[in-house]
Amino acid sequence: MTFYLAVDVGGTSTRAAVIAPDGTVRGLATAGSGNPTSSGPTIALASMLEAIRTALTDAGAEATEATSGVIGIAGAGAESGAWLLSELSKAGLSGALSLQPDLLTTFTSGSIGGDGYALVAGTGAAAIRVRNDVIDATCDGLGWLLGDSGSGFWIGHRAVRAAADALAHRAPETGLVDTILAALGIARDETAGRYGRPNALNELLDAVYRMRPVELARFAPFVFDAAADGDDTAAGIVDAAGAALASTLTAVVAADVTGPLVLGGSVLSRQSAVADRVAATFHALTGDGQRVIPVADGIAGAAVLALRRAGVDVDADVFDRVHTSLAARR
Amino acid sequence: MTFYLAVDVGGTSTRAAVIAPDGTVRGLATAGSGNPTSSGPTIALASMLEAIRTALTDAGAEATEATSGVIGIAGAGAESGAWLLSELSKAGLSGALSLQPDLLTTFTSGSIGGDGYALVAGTGAAAIRVRNDVIDATCDGLGWLLGDSGSGFWIGHRAVRAAADALAHRAPETGLVDTILAALGIARDETAGRYGRPNALNELLDAVYRMRPVELARFAPFVFDAAADGDDTAAGIVDAAGAALASTLTAVVAADVTGPLVLGGSVLSRQSAVADRVAATFHALTGDGQRVIPVADGIAGAAVLALRRAGVDVDADVFDRVHTSLAARR
Repeated sequence: MTFYLAVDVGGTSTRAAVIAPDGTVRGLATAGSGNPTSSGPTIALASMLEAIRTALTDAGAEATEATSGVIGIAGAGAESGAWLLSELSKAGLSGALSLQPDLLTTFTSGSIGGDGYALVAGTGAAAIRVRNDVIDATCDGLGWLLGDSGSGFWIGHRAVRAAADALAHRAPETGLVDTILAALGIARDETAGRYGRPNALNELLDAVYRMRPVELARFAPFVFDAAADGDDTAAGIVDAAGAALASTLTAVVAADVTGPLVLGGSVLSRQSAVADRVAATFHALTGDGQRVIPVADGIAGAAVLALRRAGVDVDADVFDRVHTSLAARR
Repeated sequence: MTFYLAVDVGGTSTRAAVIAPDGTVRGLATAGSGNPTSSGPTIALASMLEAIRTALTDAGAEATEATSGVIGIAGAGAESGAWLLSELSKAGLSGALSLQPDLLTTFTSGSIGGDGYALVAGTGAAAIRVRNDVIDATCDGLGWLLGDSGSGFWIGHRAVRAAADALAHRAPETGLVDTILAALGIARDETAGRYGRPNALNELLDAVYRMRPVELARFAPFVFDAAADGDDTAAGIVDAAGAALASTLTAVVAADVTGPLVLGGSVLSRQSAVADRVAATFHALTGDGQRVIPVADGIAGAAVLALRRAGVDVDADVFDRVHTSLAARR
């Protein structure tokens, strides 16, 4: 029997699904980080292979039966892409695999039509405009150092800076100080230490500079919790994140591309305040008739794109079958 | 004969001097980066040893004759400090060496009195208040990820972001685009490539993410040049850097600590627009009677502190002798 592979590569986890030609998900598996940029190519490849093989086992299928597939991944088309495809082929996945931007698989998870928009805010943040099934424009997604405004990193970074500035008495006290120090196992000792700085600030600096920068995204949930508790600093960060994401979305909206807005990533899926603001901006730009569709990830979209590449006509029935059979296996 | 060692450790270069008890510099040498944080402890140690040994040879002295000394270094007192002292001792520098904050050696390069202020803006940025020869308060110096406002990194980072945003048509065109692309060997090809982004932007992202973040400080001089040529974006960055450094200085000025302001680091030594703004702020806070003293580095201050630790009374004659004999050997 013929199957198609769908893979959704993320910085935190990697999902793989084995899809029958009618859209039914026959196998599903999850592995660790598959992002070559954040985890390195070796770990990324291992995560992809583990997810794919486990999904094939789950489906009772052989790799040789998976004739083609789509891998949704950040930075598809970068130098690492050709290497990944070559390694996957060496590992026995001889079917034609195609790397597609994770932003496009996220969009396709939510939209059966080939026109519209996606806004993703997880560890990073970016918006795309999709026209005739291809990405027509991208805004942001420039990474933690140069952009990703409103992303989990961006929020966590501002939280740590606010906490450091509060400890240095250069910014107002905020509940973020105690939650961030506690998360790092640092006592709030404000006795002057090295350089005349509070000991807790010196320890915070030491701890943060031992982390990889993108790991600051782990502090983003604290910001949402503190904002919900009425913390002014946290509320200001959440507000600024919503404004930044609305601005990123606005930059890609074009009058002649109608269609839904698909929302992905933890900042949008778990924080209704941010998602609501983005949705309001979208409706103001496009009129209330356009739908806003939150999705969990890009695995359904990768499945739809894999079917389409194989010549399957993905109508509403097939699209719904992908989603319902996926939901049944989660 | 007895000599004292003075070492000034920097991220770009490391200087060592051999000082006679009367303040005369008998030997001087320069080696590469000695900063354990930016270059790693092994390279840092090698740079320090090379500078010290070359300076001893220059002075015609033996290591055993150097009975004590002062090493000015960022992060003195951090975990790496004890390791460095232990390794220097193993390498035969058995005299009592003391690690002192580079901000304090910079201050002492400019001030014979033990009260006043130093503001340093090189790759990083920080201000200190000095009272009775010790650091009484520090502002900023939180590193590239959490602070260092107005530093070379901070300026270079804003320059790259402005260039990326201009290429993405989200910010006004600026001369920084062409100078930064040229410095990285990237042609200005704005044809849409990966993700629908201009090829030059994709190449800029690839190049910047291959660099260590602090290396973005290399773009700071472009900002000053462009600002001098009337580029609005660059002028805005320079203006913001001056405001940030003035704010950092303001946070440490106290009414009961009179004394000079010592300025160090390339952003202040090479950019009179920034230095003038900081000096104006200082005079507004303290009255015009307080001097503003630019210094090249912390080597003279390390020499003065080494002499004082050895019990030498550093009067104006000794202080001047350190400076004149140092200048004669540069």
